[in-house]
Amino acid sequence: MFLTRSEYDRGVNTFSPEGRLFQVEYAIEAIKLGSTAIGICTTEGVVLAVEKRITSPLMVSSTVEKIVEVDKHIGCATSGLMADARTLIERARVECQNHWFVYNERMSIESCAQAVSTLAIQFGDSGDGDGGSAMSRPFGVAILFAGIEDGVPQLWHMDPSGTYIQYEAKAIGSGSEGAQQNLKDNYTKEMTLEDAIKLSLNTLKQVMEEKLSSTNVEVMTMTPEKQFYMFGKDEVEKQITELA
Amino acid sequence: MFLTRSEYDRGVNTFSPEGRLFQVEYAIEAIKLGSTAIGICTTEGVVLAVEKRITSPLMVSSTVEKIVEVDKHIGCATSGLMADARTLIERARVECQNHWFVYNERMSIESCAQAVSTLAIQFGDSGDGDGGSAMSRPFGVAILFAGIEDGVPQLWHMDPSGTYIQYEAKAIGSGSEGAQQNLKDNYTKEMTLEDAIKLSLNTLKQVMEEKLSSTNVEVMTMTPEKQFYMFGKDEVEKQITELA
Amino acid sequence: MFLTRSEYDRGVNTFSPEGRLFQVEYAIEAIKLGSTAIGICTTEGVVLAVEKRITSPLMVSSTVEKIVEVDKHIGCATSGLMADARTLIERARVECQNHWFVYNERMSIESCAQAVSTLAIQFGDSGDGDGGSAMSRPFGVAILFAGIEDGVPQLWHMDPSGTYIQYEAKAIGSGSEGAQQNLKDNYTKEMTLEDAIKLSLNTLKQVMEEKLSSTNVEVMTMTPEKQFYMFGKDEVEKQITELA
Amino acid sequence: MFLTRSEYDRGVNTFSPEGRLFQVEYAIEAIKLGSTAIGICTTEGVVLAVEKRITSPLMVSSTVEKIVEVDKHIGCATSGLMADARTLIERARVECQNHWFVYNERMSIESCAQAVSTLAIQFGDSGDGDGGSAMSRPFGVAILFAGIEDGVPQLWHMDPSGTYIQYEAKAIGSGSEGAQQNLKDNYTKEMTLEDAIKLSLNTLKQVMEEKLSSTNVEVMTMTPEKQFYMFGKDEVEKQITELA
Amino acid sequence: MFLTRSEYDRGVNTFSPEGRLFQVEYAIEAIKLGSTAIGICTTEGVVLAVEKRITSPLMVSSTVEKIVEVDKHIGCATSGLMADARTLIERARVECQNHWFVYNERMSIESCAQAVSTLAIQFGDSGDGDGGSAMSRPFGVAILFAGIEDGVPQLWHMDPSGTYIQYEAKAIGSGSEGAQQNLKDNYTKEMTLEDAIKLSLNTLKQVMEEKLSSTNVEVMTMTPEKQFYMFGKDEVEKQITELA
Amino acid sequence: MFLTRSEYDRGVNTFSPEGRLFQVEYAIEAIKLGSTAIGICTTEGVVLAVEKRITSPLMVSSTVEKIVEVDKHIGCATSGLMADARTLIERARVECQNHWFVYNERMSIESCAQAVSTLAIQFGDSGDGDGGSAMSRPFGVAILFAGIEDGVPQLWHMDPSGTYIQYEAKAIGSGSEGAQQNLKDNYTKEMTLEDAIKLSLNTLKQVMEEKLSSTNVEVMTMTPEKQFYMFGKDEVEKQITELA
Amino acid sequence: MFLTRSEYDRGVNTFSPEGRLFQVEYAIEAIKLGSTAIGICTTEGVVLAVEKRITSPLMVSSTVEKIVEVDKHIGCATSGLMADARTLIERARVECQNHWFVYNERMSIESCAQAVSTLAIQFGDSGDGDGGSAMSRPFGVAILFAGIEDGVPQLWHMDPSGTYIQYEAKAIGSGSEGAQQNLKDNYTKEMTLEDAIKLSLNTLKQVMEEKLSSTNVEVMTMTPEKQFYMFGKDEVEKQITELA
Repeated sequence: MFLTRSEYDRGVNTFSPEGRLFQVEYAIEAIKLGSTAIGICTTEGVVLAVEKRITSPLMVSSTVEKIVEVDKHIGCATSGLMADARTLIERARVECQNHWFVYNERMSIESCAQAVSTLAIQFGDSGDGDGGSAMSRPFGVAILFAGIEDGVPQLWHMDPSGTYIQYEAKAIGSGSEGAQQNLKDNYTKEMTLEDAIKLSLNTLKQVMEEKLSSTNVEVMTMTPEKQFYMFGKDEVEKQITELA
Repeated sequence: MFLTRSEYDRGVNTFSPEGRLFQVEYAIEAIKLGSTAIGICTTEGVVLAVEKRITSPLMVSSTVEKIVEVDKHIGCATSGLMADARTLIERARVECQNHWFVYNERMSIESCAQAVSTLAIQFGDSGDGDGGSAMSRPFGVAILFAGIEDGVPQLWHMDPSGTYIQYEAKAIGSGSEGAQQNLKDNYTKEMTLEDAIKLSLNTLKQVMEEKLSSTNVEVMTMTPEKQFYMFGKDEVEKQITELA
Repeated sequence: MFLTRSEYDRGVNTFSPEGRLFQVEYAIEAIKLGSTAIGICTTEGVVLAVEKRITSPLMVSSTVEKIVEVDKHIGCATSGLMADARTLIERARVECQNHWFVYNERMSIESCAQAVSTLAIQFGDSGDGDGGSAMSRPFGVAILFAGIEDGVPQLWHMDPSGTYIQYEAKAIGSGSEGAQQNLKDNYTKEMTLEDAIKLSLNTLKQVMEEKLSSTNVEVMTMTPEKQFYMFGKDEVEKQITELA
Repeated sequence: MFLTRSEYDRGVNTFSPEGRLFQVEYAIEAIKLGSTAIGICTTEGVVLAVEKRITSPLMVSSTVEKIVEVDKHIGCATSGLMADARTLIERARVECQNHWFVYNERMSIESCAQAVSTLAIQFGDSGDGDGGSAMSRPFGVAILFAGIEDGVPQLWHMDPSGTYIQYEAKAIGSGSEGAQQNLKDNYTKEMTLEDAIKLSLNTLKQVMEEKLSSTNVEVMTMTPEKQFYMFGKDEVEKQITELA
Repeated sequence: MFLTRSEYDRGVNTFSPEGRLFQVEYAIEAIKLGSTAIGICTTEGVVLAVEKRITSPLMVSSTVEKIVEVDKHIGCATSGLMADARTLIERARVECQNHWFVYNERMSIESCAQAVSTLAIQFGDSGDGDGGSAMSRPFGVAILFAGIEDGVPQLWHMDPSGTYIQYEAKAIGSGSEGAQQNLKDNYTKEMTLEDAIKLSLNTLKQVMEEKLSSTNVEVMTMTPEKQFYMFGKDEVEKQITELA
Repeated sequence: MFLTRSEYDRGVNTFSPEGRLFQVEYAIEAIKLGSTAIGICTTEGVVLAVEKRITSPLMVSSTVEKIVEVDKHIGCATSGLMADARTLIERARVECQNHWFVYNERMSIESCAQAVSTLAIQFGDSGDGDGGSAMSRPFGVAILFAGIEDGVPQLWHMDPSGTYIQYEAKAIGSGSEGAQQNLKDNYTKEMTLEDAIKLSLNTLKQVMEEKLSSTNVEVMTMTPEKQFYMFGKDEVEKQITELA
Repeated sequence: MFLTRSEYDRGVNTFSPEGRLFQVEYAIEAIKLGSTAIGICTTEGVVLAVEKRITSPLMVSSTVEKIVEVDKHIGCATSGLMADARTLIERARVECQNHWFVYNERMSIESCAQAVSTLAIQFGDSGDGDGGSAMSRPFGVAILFAGIEDGVPQLWHMDPSGTYIQYEAKAIGSGSEGAQQNLKDNYTKEMTLEDAIKLSLNTLKQVMEEKLSSTNVEVMTMTPEKQFYMFGKDEVEKQITELA
């Protein structure tokens, strides 16, 4: 069966006889090679917790940005190809600024995800010659958007097919399978944000090969009060200590 | 025979010796992997009922939009690739707004389908460089348009080949074969809208693997009075309860 | 022999060693998969009669348009890919309107066929980037043009190679072989229009698998007096009844 | 040997190791599938006589134009792909009109042939994006130009390689081999135009499978006095009768 | 070894592992299929003598132009693909006229060859979209330029690789190997133009299969006094008679 | 396994079934063929030390620039394809000048790396036609950026995938594996710049085949006081002598 | 191993799994098929000495220009494809003139080499449509630049990868291996220009198959006093005589 498949999967944007787009499916595989990221949405706020792969002790781990601010009210965690992620986030930022400039209001998280999705599916041979945005392959990156809309926390997920859906809790990256199961078992709608932080780190702990530390984990909360708030090294350390 | 076929089916837009366009046929296969959607047209109005695939209990099912409003008098249900669907629906919305702006009248449902069809068949290697609309493959999506034209309800269907035809009742997606048979057996021109809602949910019930619930089913009615009307969770629940 | 052929037939626009263009020949095959259409020209007028494939009883058969008006004095029946047909007919309509606007006279049927032919042969890799008209494959559609020129009825036929020729009677589509034989055996230059209608329906009757009815047959006459005139359901029914 | 050849002959515009351009040679083969056309030049004028393939008795043979007027003083007969022929002739007509408009004199037959040749060799992958003239393959058509230049009759021949050469008598199309031999055996520089007409029809008679008639043969003379003159059905019939 | 070669020689503009450009080498082969042309330069002037291939006695041999005037002081003989030759010569003519118009002096023969060379190497996939000059393959033509510069006769040769070099005597085309040997054996710098004419015709005589005649041979001299001078039929005949 | 891989690795920008981009991975291999470069960041400043491959004693080694100045406060060392490196550095220089011109402040090292990264991932078939920046393959070069930001020394690394990360010490090129191990074993945050210079040269000594000399080694320091400072031949010689 | 290689080496600009660009390596092979050129730099000036391949005694050897003047203070010798060389030199000349015009100073030799390098690496599928400069393959030419900068002689070398490095003495072309060895053995920094001329000719003598003569050797010196100075035939002859 693999042989038959191989006849269709190299065409960047060609359907197989069963109606599948293999290049998009392979891009989704690329995410499974990426570092794990967890997002949990509570009524108090959203938490994003991500694994950082520190391949060398000489790496300055703070510059491996896996969680970034898109706008004051939207932050996101990515998994997959880092350079692809930057391109998509750059688009998200520009769209948010534009929206604010034109309409004098914060962009909704869904609209922001849609703007990124529009860019994500514009790939293939039909390069439209308008500069850096056209890709000849799908983007190899998944994104978790954490945001506040009208005071309500939201968590959205987008994959390389450009599909974006709202979640209560979602895991992406190499450990996503086990992590998603753990979230499913332990998530409750009534959780406090503090519980969610604990759950997210506990989940990462189960799927990461290395021991959790303030070096290889990043934590961010998105709340109506503080909006985008990245945890300092000591705060992460404190959370990890409390876990044990 | 499959071997012979494989020689022609990767050319995006090439005829086989029997005069077939395989990529379009494969795109039609992509629909068969999608979720099921049912449309029924009565003299009182049109009902669209769709299956929503909730792959995780943590998914916020209300954001999996399978039925969307194109204009006040046109709604549609889609099955297949979600990102492709959004592109086509975006076009439908723009065309409807343009029509209203230029002619000061609501666009007919057929014209709306034609506008989407024009976009759908503009694929292939001859990317015309005018931005995001050019695709290098057929769109992998089927659409049911429900609308009101001069006070009369209409149901239209469009497939990836760009063909659009008016139906009295039509099913698309993975369960379409069984569903279409059920519609054929039970549809009558004299049905009330209430009957049609029941028939559509009953049909979904027969082809869906999961149990019907207000989480995995979406229902919308298009009537001359209320125009686009999406059922709330309780209304869907009520209909399901009445079914049993 | 098929092996040798297969080496040349996938190049969209490449000659085989015998000087043949296979993609055009395959497009002609696509017509043979289409529904049958009959055109007969008499001194009183032209009749077009076409089979409509109603694949589902829930289809609204009147929206399966196989005969359309191009201009008041030109109508046409198509067989093959429906989306391709619409593109060609759209061009025919624009050209007719342009001609009338610029020269203040009705376009001749031959000129109209030539305009469509020019579009039909503009396919291949040299997409000229001027919008929706460039195709990367031949159009998979045959057209019968019925028109009145200086008060005289004319019937023209165009195939995917862009060749257009005037006929006294012509059949296209899946049943064209048998139908053309029947026309040849029964056509006389002296026929009345009424005779021609009968002959066209009789011919369809012989090649169609389903029983003739006002649902699966469309009839149109083009006369100097009434110009484009599409038969109503009752008129078609009446003609069918008279046949038996 | 055929195997080796096949490696080079699908590249539209690629030299084989022996320095040959196979696609052009195959286009020349396409002419050999076309109908036969004969041109004979005398001091009194040029005659063009062509076979018309009437594949159905219901075809209106007068619309199968194999001989057309380019300008008052230039006519031409074509063999090969009809749609390609129209494109080249359209170019010839435009060039002749332009020349007359700009220089106020009739274009020479050689210049006219050169203009068509320029178009004929502009094929290949380097589509220059200036609209309908760029072809992705050689034109599959040969042309006989009959014209009057400064009162002297001339006959020119152009093939798909764009080569154009003046001839005293030339045959093209499926029967060209036998026909050319017949012309060589019987042509004399002293022939009258009447003799040339007879010779051309006699030559057609020998190579055509069907019996000569005013339906399947077209005759045209180009003389300093009458310029482009197409024979009527009765005149053709008369000539055929005189042959026997 | 041929197998290995075949993997590289179809890429229009790709180096083989040994650093060769096969398509250019094959274009040079195309010249070897062309008619033979001889050029000899003396202090009195240059002579060009070429074989004309008269494939049919009905061909008007004077229209097979193998020697053409580029400017008053430059003439050239070509061998290879005739349509390619015309394109290159057209460029040479335009460049000469431009030079004369801009600088009010005759273009040097080397500059003229360089201008043609620039066009000759501009082939490949990077069609630059500026109209008819871009080729997707090398030009299959070799050119002998005969010219007068500051009163001194010069002979230049250009091949499909765009290389141009000045020669005292040079042969191109199918008989070039034997012809070049003959020129080498008999050429002396002290030759008169009359001697050169004799030598050129004698050389052609040795390599041509057919008997020399005023029909199949063209002779031209380029001298400071008469500049471009094409021999008439009688002059050619006289020279041939004197040879014997 | 290699066979399976080979099916995907030639598409410049295509995912393999495991979600990998082979062309980018191969470009990373290209770095492993390049000369070794070492960067070490201390609180006093950054040192870059690189191997220069002097393939011939007649080469003027000072012109083999492996360390270049981007701006006064940013220098960089490259390994891999030299011509690619120049293109990226040129971009870095232009961006730095632009930033200074527009904002009247020095560009941060991270922003500079991002600007180069943006260029580095803009490759593939979708050439956007805006001149020299579009590449049809990934850049085969790795870069170490040494800079001073707000008085603090920083070391950044960028690879062909466009990923850029801050390091305390990093080695690239053919000897990078052993070198990185040596850095890891000996680097301490408290190192003086002088220690770092010794460590960098010692590391190079271990991985270079040739004996260290002022000819085949280049050393540069980036300090808040002296900014970009390239060591002279004698200074390098002195350091090497002190090593032994 | 050759089989594996062949899978990657036809992609014009694709990395092999080992990180190599085969087309560039093959272009470097093309140089090894070219004629030998020697450059030697002394404190008094630079000498360039090149082999000229006179394939026919009838060739006018002075027109085989292997050493050309770029600007008064820069000359260069090329080896490889002659037509490619002309394109690169043309660029060098234009850049030098531009520089002089804009900055009113002579361009440095390194800048001139860089300008040519920029052109040399702009090849591949991403033709940028700005005319004649875009190549679909690497340039198959190596260049030796001899120049005077601030009164100091310099010798630079550029290969098809666009890499340019300063040399004291460098040999390129088919005999480069032996020649470079000879230069290495005999070059001293203290050499006079006269010694360098002798060494260059001696080196050519060892690697050329034919006997040195003023016909097949070209010599040029670049000195602060005389700048670009091409030796006359007698001067070359004198040098050769002195060698023996």
